[in-house]
Amino acid sequence: MRQDELKALLQAVASGKLNSDTALERLSGQFVDDLGDVCVDLGRERRCGMSEAVFCQGKTPKQIVAVMRSLDRAGQNILGTRCDAETARAVRRSIKGLKHHAEARILIKMNKAPQPRKGRLLVCCAGASDLPVAEEAALTAEFLGCKTTRAYDVGVAGLHRLTRRLDDLRNADVIVCCAGMEGALPSVVAGLVDCPVIAVPTSVGYGASFGGIAALLAMLNSCASGVSVVNIGNGFGASVFADAILRRL
Amino acid sequence: MRQDELKALLQAVASGKLNSDTALERLSGQFVDDLGDVCVDLGRERRCGMSEAVFCQGKTPKQIVAVMRSLDRAGQNILGTRCDAETARAVRRSIKGLKHHAEARILIKMNKAPQPRKGRLLVCCAGASDLPVAEEAALTAEFLGCKTTRAYDVGVAGLHRLTRRLDDLRNADVIVCCAGMEGALPSVVAGLVDCPVIAVPTSVGYGASFGGIAALLAMLNSCASGVSVVNIGNGFGASVFADAILRRL
Amino acid sequence: MRQDELKALLQAVASGKLNSDTALERLSGQFVDDLGDVCVDLGRERRCGMSEAVFCQGKTPKQIVAVMRSLDRAGQNILGTRCDAETARAVRRSIKGLKHHAEARILIKMNKAPQPRKGRLLVCCAGASDLPVAEEAALTAEFLGCKTTRAYDVGVAGLHRLTRRLDDLRNADVIVCCAGMEGALPSVVAGLVDCPVIAVPTSVGYGASFGGIAALLAMLNSCASGVSVVNIGNGFGASVFADAILRRL
Amino acid sequence: MRQDELKALLQAVASGKLNSDTALERLSGQFVDDLGDVCVDLGRERRCGMSEAVFCQGKTPKQIVAVMRSLDRAGQNILGTRCDAETARAVRRSIKGLKHHAEARILIKMNKAPQPRKGRLLVCCAGASDLPVAEEAALTAEFLGCKTTRAYDVGVAGLHRLTRRLDDLRNADVIVCCAGMEGALPSVVAGLVDCPVIAVPTSVGYGASFGGIAALLAMLNSCASGVSVVNIGNGFGASVFADAILRRL
Amino acid sequence: MRQDELKALLQAVASGKLNSDTALERLSGQFVDDLGDVCVDLGRERRCGMSEAVFCQGKTPKQIVAVMRSLDRAGQNILGTRCDAETARAVRRSIKGLKHHAEARILIKMNKAPQPRKGRLLVCCAGASDLPVAEEAALTAEFLGCKTTRAYDVGVAGLHRLTRRLDDLRNADVIVCCAGMEGALPSVVAGLVDCPVIAVPTSVGYGASFGGIAALLAMLNSCASGVSVVNIGNGFGASVFADAILRRL
Amino acid sequence: MRQDELKALLQAVASGKLNSDTALERLSGQFVDDLGDVCVDLGRERRCGMSEAVFCQGKTPKQIVAVMRSLDRAGQNILGTRCDAETARAVRRSIKGLKHHAEARILIKMNKAPQPRKGRLLVCCAGASDLPVAEEAALTAEFLGCKTTRAYDVGVAGLHRLTRRLDDLRNADVIVCCAGMEGALPSVVAGLVDCPVIAVPTSVGYGASFGGIAALLAMLNSCASGVSVVNIGNGFGASVFADAILRRL
Amino acid sequence: MRQDELKALLQAVASGKLNSDTALERLSGQFVDDLGDVCVDLGRERRCGMSEAVFCQGKTPKQIVAVMRSLDRAGQNILGTRCDAETARAVRRSIKGLKHHAEARILIKMNKAPQPRKGRLLVCCAGASDLPVAEEAALTAEFLGCKTTRAYDVGVAGLHRLTRRLDDLRNADVIVCCAGMEGALPSVVAGLVDCPVIAVPTSVGYGASFGGIAALLAMLNSCASGVSVVNIGNGFGASVFADAILRRL
Amino acid sequence: MRQDELKALLQAVASGKLNSDTALERLSGQFVDDLGDVCVDLGRERRCGMSEAVFCQGKTPKQIVAVMRSLDRAGQNILGTRCDAETARAVRRSIKGLKHHAEARILIKMNKAPQPRKGRLLVCCAGASDLPVAEEAALTAEFLGCKTTRAYDVGVAGLHRLTRRLDDLRNADVIVCCAGMEGALPSVVAGLVDCPVIAVPTSVGYGASFGGIAALLAMLNSCASGVSVVNIGNGFGASVFADAILRRL
Repeated sequence: MRQDELKALLQAVASGKLNSDTALERLSGQFVDDLGDVCVDLGRERRCGMSEAVFCQGKTPKQIVAVMRSLDRAGQNILGTRCDAETARAVRRSIKGLKHHAEARILIKMNKAPQPRKGRLLVCCAGASDLPVAEEAALTAEFLGCKTTRAYDVGVAGLHRLTRRLDDLRNADVIVCCAGMEGALPSVVAGLVDCPVIAVPTSVGYGASFGGIAALLAMLNSCASGVSVVNIGNGFGASVFADAILRRL
Repeated sequence: MRQDELKALLQAVASGKLNSDTALERLSGQFVDDLGDVCVDLGRERRCGMSEAVFCQGKTPKQIVAVMRSLDRAGQNILGTRCDAETARAVRRSIKGLKHHAEARILIKMNKAPQPRKGRLLVCCAGASDLPVAEEAALTAEFLGCKTTRAYDVGVAGLHRLTRRLDDLRNADVIVCCAGMEGALPSVVAGLVDCPVIAVPTSVGYGASFGGIAALLAMLNSCASGVSVVNIGNGFGASVFADAILRRL
Repeated sequence: MRQDELKALLQAVASGKLNSDTALERLSGQFVDDLGDVCVDLGRERRCGMSEAVFCQGKTPKQIVAVMRSLDRAGQNILGTRCDAETARAVRRSIKGLKHHAEARILIKMNKAPQPRKGRLLVCCAGASDLPVAEEAALTAEFLGCKTTRAYDVGVAGLHRLTRRLDDLRNADVIVCCAGMEGALPSVVAGLVDCPVIAVPTSVGYGASFGGIAALLAMLNSCASGVSVVNIGNGFGASVFADAILRRL
Repeated sequence: MRQDELKALLQAVASGKLNSDTALERLSGQFVDDLGDVCVDLGRERRCGMSEAVFCQGKTPKQIVAVMRSLDRAGQNILGTRCDAETARAVRRSIKGLKHHAEARILIKMNKAPQPRKGRLLVCCAGASDLPVAEEAALTAEFLGCKTTRAYDVGVAGLHRLTRRLDDLRNADVIVCCAGMEGALPSVVAGLVDCPVIAVPTSVGYGASFGGIAALLAMLNSCASGVSVVNIGNGFGASVFADAILRRL
Repeated sequence: MRQDELKALLQAVASGKLNSDTALERLSGQFVDDLGDVCVDLGRERRCGMSEAVFCQGKTPKQIVAVMRSLDRAGQNILGTRCDAETARAVRRSIKGLKHHAEARILIKMNKAPQPRKGRLLVCCAGASDLPVAEEAALTAEFLGCKTTRAYDVGVAGLHRLTRRLDDLRNADVIVCCAGMEGALPSVVAGLVDCPVIAVPTSVGYGASFGGIAALLAMLNSCASGVSVVNIGNGFGASVFADAILRRL
Repeated sequence: MRQDELKALLQAVASGKLNSDTALERLSGQFVDDLGDVCVDLGRERRCGMSEAVFCQGKTPKQIVAVMRSLDRAGQNILGTRCDAETARAVRRSIKGLKHHAEARILIKMNKAPQPRKGRLLVCCAGASDLPVAEEAALTAEFLGCKTTRAYDVGVAGLHRLTRRLDDLRNADVIVCCAGMEGALPSVVAGLVDCPVIAVPTSVGYGASFGGIAALLAMLNSCASGVSVVNIGNGFGASVFADAILRRL
Repeated sequence: MRQDELKALLQAVASGKLNSDTALERLSGQFVDDLGDVCVDLGRERRCGMSEAVFCQGKTPKQIVAVMRSLDRAGQNILGTRCDAETARAVRRSIKGLKHHAEARILIKMNKAPQPRKGRLLVCCAGASDLPVAEEAALTAEFLGCKTTRAYDVGVAGLHRLTRRLDDLRNADVIVCCAGMEGALPSVVAGLVDCPVIAVPTSVGYGASFGGIAALLAMLNSCASGVSVVNIGNGFGASVFADAILRRL
Repeated sequence: MRQDELKALLQAVASGKLNSDTALERLSGQFVDDLGDVCVDLGRERRCGMSEAVFCQGKTPKQIVAVMRSLDRAGQNILGTRCDAETARAVRRSIKGLKHHAEARILIKMNKAPQPRKGRLLVCCAGASDLPVAEEAALTAEFLGCKTTRAYDVGVAGLHRLTRRLDDLRNADVIVCCAGMEGALPSVVAGLVDCPVIAVPTSVGYGASFGGIAALLAMLNSCASGVSVVNIGNGFGASVFADAILRRL
């Protein structure tokens, strides 16, 4: 239940359209749904602007289903991250209307339309191998109601691929920028624009890329100011953060 | 020269108030001031919304003075970071009106008033030992025109210190959150608010804090979404990023 | 053979109820059972208050069976840790009464009732993905005779999930607290209670969680005093330690 | 104000010995003393059983004095850790009765007698170079009211130095065990006793000891169960934890 | 061809028992057998006292067979290390008389009796899970002609398991000591004996054992002098080193 | 399109042999071929002397095919690296004339003869297990038109294997030198020659070789000057670099 | 003695201009000058194209003087690296004509003119703080006879600073490219040119730059091929390598 | 008291030359001298063949003096390691006859002649900067009675410096081999000899040498078998180990 929905409910009570018992019942489930092994944070949508996302990795399908059913009952939108194909199949058998985006490893079910955001989000990535992370970012952003432009495979080894997208870069209100290997793209991008750049290191590479550490360190040490960083492969988190920005415009 | 100043200059030319030769002269210096050892990026203010900041660490006073004089000539505001007391003394002898904030290790000279930002920035930190980083953030933000509230020494070992500032937290449009040791503060804060939280790890701690690595890793792995991270001790960068958000409101 | 059992045996000899030869025979096997490849420490129960636990990972079923048979012959209780399903199947064919708890990867056989402990142990964890470690802790504690309360999925991103369990937290005599990702839970918990908090990092997370290192470092650097830490994923060790506390109450 | 003091105060109010206004005044300062840069957690003593300790490293003498004066005003006992000689001199000029233990780098002022603990704490260390950490532990324990026995320089290279102290080891209710280099002592000790062993890695060593990492890892991987670990050099934390155990006996 | 065999050959030429052409032919193959992809070092036996061992990991069966055939032709003994079961099967089809010791992952073929060594080698290990490494050491030593005693599962959590083997320890001329987890065994052993102790870290453990790094660091930092260390899991190298000692007695 | 091809085209336009529309069409595709997910850098051949190579790891066969078709259409030579057998099979079904070198994991299709380079390249490696990397280097070099000599299995444990190839070493104009384990070969080689030595660490080894880190660090710290280093396992990059040298002779 | 000098000497002997005894004397000192603590490699100039450079760090002035005198006697040019001001003063008292370049920490004495190299070397760096390393590179190159162009402070945060030097970049035959922080410059440069790019990470930065590790990793993982890397801060080695290239043109 | 001295004492008692009370007094001090802060292991000489060495780093002069006086009283030889000049001065004022070897940072006092060892020890090092470690090894060996040959500055960048010492290498019974930077020397040496090679990494180097880690890893991964390794900079330990070998010849 978002802030505006809560307000509507209280006004309904105030105006007599809703009796207080029904209101109480609807409100009481707003905060925590304690299911033993899992304890769903139903108040997160109202508190933080987004319903609790389900981190699927390391959870059994049964646990995932339990959380999603709880969110479903509360009428909140459902987003599951880092969900492989096998787990997705098992979960989807129990949750109707749930869709799996295989490349981005994301599960999505919309129970209500998201509030459309103002402003523009650009999601870019350095190489085609970064696509799973970039798509996780783009789909999360769209789930939250953001308008999203994609600029993929624009790494610094061929700068003209990037500079031909200069208009898209400069028109963005926030940029999510994914790169593996040496992770140089966010530094170059942030030197060209005046909006916040959220850097997402990916594990693309081998040897001394150490599963994304090389890119992560590069991004943390960007010589261009105006760059902040999320965890390796965390396209989801980058877009939740971006959305928190766009939500205020 | 900011975008609005540039526009004004061009309008002055268009209206005949300024002849084109003078305009050319003023524009020609807008991009690069190549001084041999240093090559000042005078176009950064217009491109990225902020004049080039001088990273003082590892530079000789002579190099720092050279860059600052160049910025001074161009009428831009001057910010030097990571400048110890001894270097500050040497530099201030050559640049009039330059002020050193010792705790934050920052040099500042205002040549024009910053554009006031809308929205509110909250800078908080976990312990009193985090102050130098928190103040670097707060002073940078104020240099850029942001309204800044401070909430210091509100670490998670005494949650009530944090929760009594809940109104400040919830009223903020963006939060810069500094912490050393286990770096737990941003996770807790991000679970309470719906605005973007920029986490700044500090090197406060000893032993297995590894100069801030423990806090850095914690922040990158925050279980609360909506957190992004900058380099260890990079209060400056956090506020440049925060400013890029507030600038769009 | 525990200290009290040993005392009883010696009193039986003293009172003539047991002849010394029989006593000798029973005692002689108390210390070491050397089987070539393995050398079972039968004296550990008497010395350290708990029979030797079998670390199953990296052992062949044959080796595990050999140790368990030796413990069985000595009438001691049997606990095997980090035992996957396949090994468990093989071992259980040879040791009657052995039970496998799949999620916690634990093998248990009770040959005598444990001494009931005074005091209360609380096992809590930050997310549902931490369950295998939390259950390893809870089952180990129960194996040793502890009364155990569970508080699962109470991570800091939704503090109200934790604070609604405040009574359970404050009534505990010792807390085992499992968390992955940024590992912030033990710091917050230790700031709310006055009993010892044993922190167990888990490998839940990805990217810069580095298989639990992020959580481990966070816990070692807890700003709340009164926290000590065990190895990543070592729910077993945490409860053995907790039991050594409760045993003294 | 400890739980028992609080109870006494409330009884005084109930019995009319104290008027409620005075009581309110005394209580109102119990929780937080917000001094701007620092925000003293006066409620910690009541909540966690110990007044807030001052982590002196990285704080200015002025900040340290501010916190200590606040604790002093509240009548709580004062403990400052990791305080070098120079800072100690500066602070002691402002806080009367404050004593500096140079080797342990600890500042102490007793404003009331600690509650004597039951049970016995043994502090042992592997080599004479570990003394600063061991003494930090021993002095902290005594500050909290624990009876403390010392067994120093009993490292595993000469086992008979340890085994001649076997009675002390077996009589202890909790052991704080400090070691640098390979950090083997806690494993050996925990194999000989049935009480909890809190391992404290020290930075003693060179080369591949990596400032205590070698010892830290060894202790986390102890083959003897019943060992938990605190940060490198954290003798203070080990004894706070030990005290939380003894407090319950 | 060992030094003594070479001498015999030259004496045979000198005494006319062997004509020089045949001698030349036999000698010419003594140094390098260049097969393109592999270049066998046939001179190693004479130079370093042991024929070239084949590091099987990462080689195709075809490459392994090529080297072994070359050694076979030269009449040298054959030892292949780190060879899994599948590769072993493939290789054994081509090299007659080759035996695979599965647990130690070693391939052996004796083409001549090794020179019996004087002195005694003791191979000990901390736990049963260290067996593969300990057996690699023991079998390598026996391949080279050493008399080998085994003392397995004598880790420091139960010191009496070790001290009951004190005679074996004190009678040894060199000790190979394998341990995983905290790797404390070599320190304790070296404090009890006056012969060289070669420590072999194993990857036994989990979490912060980091695949044997914890044990490796512990061994490098042994507080007992007289300990040297080989690579994690390198039982083979430890025994080659031990053999170089015994060879000189 | 290489620089010489471009020149020829322009001359054809100048001389009227080619009308400008056709020229434009041929040129317009020279720079970027934007296919959505991938954005092929067709200008790289002209700019950097080599067509864009396809980093296959982490890409779907569909993505690889898209890039290769684009290169094919442009008449450029095709090189795909780090391509496993399964992906190779899928890709080769769509790209005619594409050949897979399984050991080197390389895909190659020649659409035009490479420009023959002057000078000699020597590719050497320390052991037979380094072959996949060495072959990646050798095949890449040949793809680019370099004359390549191989000297394999010449590691420093048997120096005479190396010194017997001294003529090859001293005749080379550039050396690519691959080694795993302790990575000592480049230091020894660079001490014997006066041409540039490009060191390629491989992941051959186990335990503390850490997947090639040991070799990488050794090479970066070579006591012989004249050594530079590429990523672990990057035989491809080493030869591209070597080719950039030979191209100038 | 270089190859051409050696040839001249032998021709002088052949033509009778020099008697063989004198020639022998001059040659005998060509290889090793064993001075006990140090053993000067006088043959390196002839073998590797450059006289032995003196790594001054960690050596006493006495040791440095001993080596330099030996080189002086042999008439070779002298280059000492990583020499601080104090050591330089002490050494210069004993070696006439030795010059100290303080910023680059280099000692130089020319005993003969270097052979002028063909081709052009460009030394560039990302920021003014990288100057010490860049100058070490430039001075070393000039010591060896290379024509050197400098392009300093051209980091990627202001790309136009780099692209305005495009002619210099494209005219170079080899580029030495120094950068700290995120180390992105070599990737961008290598994407613009077709000559070899030698990347030199510097320790410029703080926090997660880890003394240059971030830049080192970035450079090893460059997405642009044609980049090789030397040790952090090794401007000297980069130019020795570059010289080995130019020497062949 | 060594084994032979002990035997002599017992024979003196047996033959009546010594009364048992005197014998008892002399024996009773043989094992432990407990001085509170330090607990001297007087039995180590008899048990391990060498008196307890004093690790001076991190100890106060007072503590060092206490241990040395205890050893002095027991008539044992005294060796202190890692002792800087200032501490040495303070300690030597209290212990007569104690000598400080500044470069090797060693304190030595001989109270009795060491037992001369059979066999030859060679101590070699790669560069002159490794001298402090090499000398620590050589002096320790001589303290213990070993005949020691030195071969310094024979690193692999100039192989002929090493091969001209081939006779010394092949005549040795054990080799201690010190090297920093890439640590390649032990691999090359072990490929040339048939005696045990003890590798000592030193911290010589910079950047990615990481204070000796690069050399340490190289040595642990030596492709030549017959190499074992001690801690970075541990020349002392290498020679104690070497002595344990020579003692048995």
